[in-house]
Amino acid sequence: MGLLDLSRKLIMKASAIRAVQRIDELGAISETDDGLLRQFLSQANLRAAEKILEWMSLLGMHCEHQADGTIRGILSGSNPTAKPLLLGSHIDTVAHAGKYDGALGVIAALAALEDLLESGCTLPFPVHVLGFSDEEGVRFQATYLGSRAVVAGLDESLLSCRDAAGDALRDVLERDGWHDGAAHFRYAPGDVLGYVELHIEQGRVLEEAKLPIGVVSGIAGQSRISITLKGQADHAGTTPMPLRRDAMVGAAACVLAAESLAHAHSPLVATVGQISLSPNVSNSVPESVKFSLDFRHPDDEQRVELLDLLSHQFHQIAQQRDLEIHWQVVQESGAVACDDFLIEKISRAAKKVTGRCLTLASGAGHDGVMMQQIGPIGMIFVRCLKGLSHHPDEYCAPEDIAAGIDVLVEFLNSFHEA
Amino acid sequence: MGLLDLSRKLIMKASAIRAVQRIDELGAISETDDGLLRQFLSQANLRAAEKILEWMSLLGMHCEHQADGTIRGILSGSNPTAKPLLLGSHIDTVAHAGKYDGALGVIAALAALEDLLESGCTLPFPVHVLGFSDEEGVRFQATYLGSRAVVAGLDESLLSCRDAAGDALRDVLERDGWHDGAAHFRYAPGDVLGYVELHIEQGRVLEEAKLPIGVVSGIAGQSRISITLKGQADHAGTTPMPLRRDAMVGAAACVLAAESLAHAHSPLVATVGQISLSPNVSNSVPESVKFSLDFRHPDDEQRVELLDLLSHQFHQIAQQRDLEIHWQVVQESGAVACDDFLIEKISRAAKKVTGRCLTLASGAGHDGVMMQQIGPIGMIFVRCLKGLSHHPDEYCAPEDIAAGIDVLVEFLNSFHEA
Repeated sequence: MGLLDLSRKLIMKASAIRAVQRIDELGAISETDDGLLRQFLSQANLRAAEKILEWMSLLGMHCEHQADGTIRGILSGSNPTAKPLLLGSHIDTVAHAGKYDGALGVIAALAALEDLLESGCTLPFPVHVLGFSDEEGVRFQATYLGSRAVVAGLDESLLSCRDAAGDALRDVLERDGWHDGAAHFRYAPGDVLGYVELHIEQGRVLEEAKLPIGVVSGIAGQSRISITLKGQADHAGTTPMPLRRDAMVGAAACVLAAESLAHAHSPLVATVGQISLSPNVSNSVPESVKFSLDFRHPDDEQRVELLDLLSHQFHQIAQQRDLEIHWQVVQESGAVACDDFLIEKISRAAKKVTGRCLTLASGAGHDGVMMQQIGPIGMIFVRCLKGLSHHPDEYCAPEDIAAGIDVLVEFLNSFHEA
Repeated sequence: MGLLDLSRKLIMKASAIRAVQRIDELGAISETDDGLLRQFLSQANLRAAEKILEWMSLLGMHCEHQADGTIRGILSGSNPTAKPLLLGSHIDTVAHAGKYDGALGVIAALAALEDLLESGCTLPFPVHVLGFSDEEGVRFQATYLGSRAVVAGLDESLLSCRDAAGDALRDVLERDGWHDGAAHFRYAPGDVLGYVELHIEQGRVLEEAKLPIGVVSGIAGQSRISITLKGQADHAGTTPMPLRRDAMVGAAACVLAAESLAHAHSPLVATVGQISLSPNVSNSVPESVKFSLDFRHPDDEQRVELLDLLSHQFHQIAQQRDLEIHWQVVQESGAVACDDFLIEKISRAAKKVTGRCLTLASGAGHDGVMMQQIGPIGMIFVRCLKGLSHHPDEYCAPEDIAAGIDVLVEFLNSFHEA
């Protein structure tokens, strides 16, 4: 532990202590007793939103809620007509969730504003703190519904999505309480100074670097591919090796090729996470193997180029082994770059707080993917234990939360000084 | 097609034509309309046995049936007290079976004896043709019950085995018709001259060699291993490659190591036929992978030595990748060598019939595994289409069946000449 970390551990500001308490308080609001779950438009999500609106009111913010459960608190600056700076994150969770993913970004923003107000600093623009009602996409199998609604609205195809109970998003929106009297705020491109989100890292880069804070360069683009190799089923005892067309051995060669490519082209990450064999029996040479490839890179051009290279390698492996290959692109999403000006400002703040500055790409998606449609985005990552998220053991140390709040304060202060 | 093959195709002996017809006739006797199935002690299996007993009677053989449905036809030689030569195979099948696997060995033995009798040849010993009621082990999940019964009897643990309906083997034996008045023949070690079985190859070695007949050197020994590699589940997007402990990549390296070893040490065969991942999702680095290893070699010493080598390689892979490895031997069975004297005699016969002689090990198990307990064994393989067996498309060409019968005839004749 460095000296700065140690001092944060020993002397914690009231705002940081309160933030840690609020994480616990919000983490206790759940649909189920069996682990934390707050889906889009659930009663638990709405209760969490009300709780945060209370906290916003304590800061004297002007509070609003959307029909879809997204909330907003506005702190006027010295110039109420200036373009606002947006802070925030999401307040929904996956099943068996941790209590930091999403919630920390909203709570840390409020803590930073508390510090700012206490120090008598007035910003030359309004700050909007947003708590998005859906980012995880658990209920309707569609992500970023909260941030999507405030930058683009929810179109017919999304409103027709149904949850596991068979209810359409449209009907749930009209039924579940938040519709009447709700604000319908929306941002258009150019409306805002920028959107800055603080979030747990969900990886182990900061832990390895022994740093509480990282500055995000951008959100990686992603390709999801489904690959099938088809050879010939044969008796495992009676078929000599040279006569085999073993789909599993071909798949194994592909898995290693993907790993080698990613190792050689950091920050590329490539993962084969799902695999199924046919027939899946011990005494038969596998006839066909279907497997997934998750392929991410912060630079779209490089991602496409490297994926082409890997596809070529997979086809070569198939050819050498006399296997048929089927390569199907299941999903493709482009990278989103963080704004250079915001990166620079966040980096200075991070260096001031932690003594060092580490910039890293986010391999996971965040609300910034939507928010970049209306203005520049920036992100601050806070170290989390073992990189664990989407898990009850998700943990972020209080001193790291304090560091995150401090970075936000320094970042906001930099506008005051300017 | 060689000249000998062609001549067999054009001019087929009556005994061979009858054998092909009998294959069809027996193949129509099934428990189910949905593909061929004749399990141990099923009514279909008993009907098939009765049909074969009819054919045995036509040759003037003394016919017997066991309580468990195994049948025997005895042809006296010039010396009725000499040790008998045993021929035969099994008459049960798997589900959706082909009609050649097993049945061909019994039918070809009868055809060969028909030819022998027609030529006026008398052997200096009795010939027993056996049709074993169970080799596949489908009904009670225990193989070789037919041959096991005649060399060792069925012990208490086997009699307690239950089928899918919950019936114990003991109760089925007492209930299903063949018990009353059945013979209880048993062979003790040294009782017999030998056991010779003709069987379809169930592989593609003969097809590749363009030969209808192969001489079996022995039945490979087998090790079945269950391997589990355990690493760490991680987010596929946020975990850089160097920080991963990906169990699937480790398993892929193991699959390729097994293949390389087998390629370098023919006739070793190694197969990873079954694999399961946890969690099996596309956006998570796999935490653990469980997979099967089927490992066969006709030489037990080499099998054990090579398996040790592969285990060492797997443990090295695990160590290099910081994975835990669990290596569990699920099953082990020793190799069974065919008898040199019988191999020599069958080889001469095969060369006489087909012009060439190819010796190969059997990677699959056969009744010889049991029969070698009481005397020397020999096996004749007949080419089957694409090596396919345990499948409705299993096919053995009539001219190849004729060649098999001819080899049996030459083999038997060699005793007459001696």
